[in-house]
Amino acid sequence: MPENLIKPNERLDDLQNGFYLIQDPAGFCFGMDAVLLSSFANVHRGDNVLDLGTGTGILPVLLAARTTGSVFTGLEIQPESADMAARSVIYNHLEDRITILRGDIKEAATLFGAASFRVVVCNPPYLQGGHGKENGSARVSAARHEILCTLEDVISQTAAVLKDHGRFYMVHRPQRMAEIISMLHRYRLEPKRLRLVHPYMDKEPNLVLIESVKGVNPGLRIAAPLIVCERGGGFTEEIKEIYGNC
Amino acid sequence: MPENLIKPNERLDDLQNGFYLIQDPAGFCFGMDAVLLSSFANVHRGDNVLDLGTGTGILPVLLAARTTGSVFTGLEIQPESADMAARSVIYNHLEDRITILRGDIKEAATLFGAASFRVVVCNPPYLQGGHGKENGSARVSAARHEILCTLEDVISQTAAVLKDHGRFYMVHRPQRMAEIISMLHRYRLEPKRLRLVHPYMDKEPNLVLIESVKGVNPGLRIAAPLIVCERGGGFTEEIKEIYGNC
Repeated sequence: MPENLIKPNERLDDLQNGFYLIQDPAGFCFGMDAVLLSSFANVHRGDNVLDLGTGTGILPVLLAARTTGSVFTGLEIQPESADMAARSVIYNHLEDRITILRGDIKEAATLFGAASFRVVVCNPPYLQGGHGKENGSARVSAARHEILCTLEDVISQTAAVLKDHGRFYMVHRPQRMAEIISMLHRYRLEPKRLRLVHPYMDKEPNLVLIESVKGVNPGLRIAAPLIVCERGGGFTEEIKEIYGNC
Repeated sequence: MPENLIKPNERLDDLQNGFYLIQDPAGFCFGMDAVLLSSFANVHRGDNVLDLGTGTGILPVLLAARTTGSVFTGLEIQPESADMAARSVIYNHLEDRITILRGDIKEAATLFGAASFRVVVCNPPYLQGGHGKENGSARVSAARHEILCTLEDVISQTAAVLKDHGRFYMVHRPQRMAEIISMLHRYRLEPKRLRLVHPYMDKEPNLVLIESVKGVNPGLRIAAPLIVCERGGGFTEEIKEIYGNC
């Protein structure tokens, strides 16, 4: 195994699906949101998929493992994260399916051209600049806060690079759902499927998963709630299944 | 009791809260959506409240019973429904709190003037013209389909008649949630609280309850799901409580 791909400050996480991910524990590490988004996204045989702000590449690696999508491109502006993602691709021997590119979400349409992808996925920063505490390293801040890109950057670039009837999958905070839905609608990325993730059945949701389709008529399907934990503690069967299949 | 208020084709329904409603079984009768909306709406002491498309007046009667709102106005275009609503007000001795007015939702701003209400509630027709089957009587059709008014009529008139920071409560179908949220946002009726109603915990929702506030910043709170039936059958405790307190 090419262990020399991993730097001393980094660790190799077993994704439990035959694949591994290089992460820096001092940086931003992927969470349940990335796993739920990869499970929520429908990627069909032959689809080409763009991940906007791929970080250490968790979404392309999970999607390459779980789906028959043909090629995955991860775009990441931060050099350390893009570098870890590229090395994870090599470590997993996924070079024929995943390409990591260092670049800015705001320039996606220029980089890739209009109407070039069947599917776009994004696990964007959730917090608006000034909201929440912008502590920790600059890398962690940029992954959590809209410092390097805004929600509108993500949505406008997605609208540009998606083919007609192409699908966009995003995870975000429910607090921002009204803004998100309005903006998607405005950019003709029509919200078609939505699922709320609740930590417990009787608690408010803390994540929302949204599928939008470019250039179609309105009509939203809302799924049954996705409950993470049983009342008595421990993961629900559905969460165990998602982690088992990821 | 003034039994002569009730015509031979009508029936008097006991709302189980000390009040009664005159309805025509051949016409459109209120359902769980009206009861859930009246429970979802926050009406404070002294608030004046407008119900757009009041039908037989179920919302003003339930809200007058449950809240300390000062005065309620029910606007209804259909003469038979408006007449039943007005007689229910008399039957319940609520003339000092509820006024029923025959008129068109599309003219609400002209009828009442701009910025004249603290609260607006609406249980609008859910279906767009041409969708679903437009069978049954014209009255039933108009209550179910956007024949006499559209979603945009409801939202634009609400935006006009609400005072700044006034609250708007609506129940609708989840399928139309993306359109609704986009339109509310566009008319500066910011969605602030949302609750999905699921027939069973593991089923898709069939109703959505939305609170919007006029002229405030975005930021949505989504509640825990409202589940109607237990897995084994029978109403959940929360539904029993809502019906008990209505």
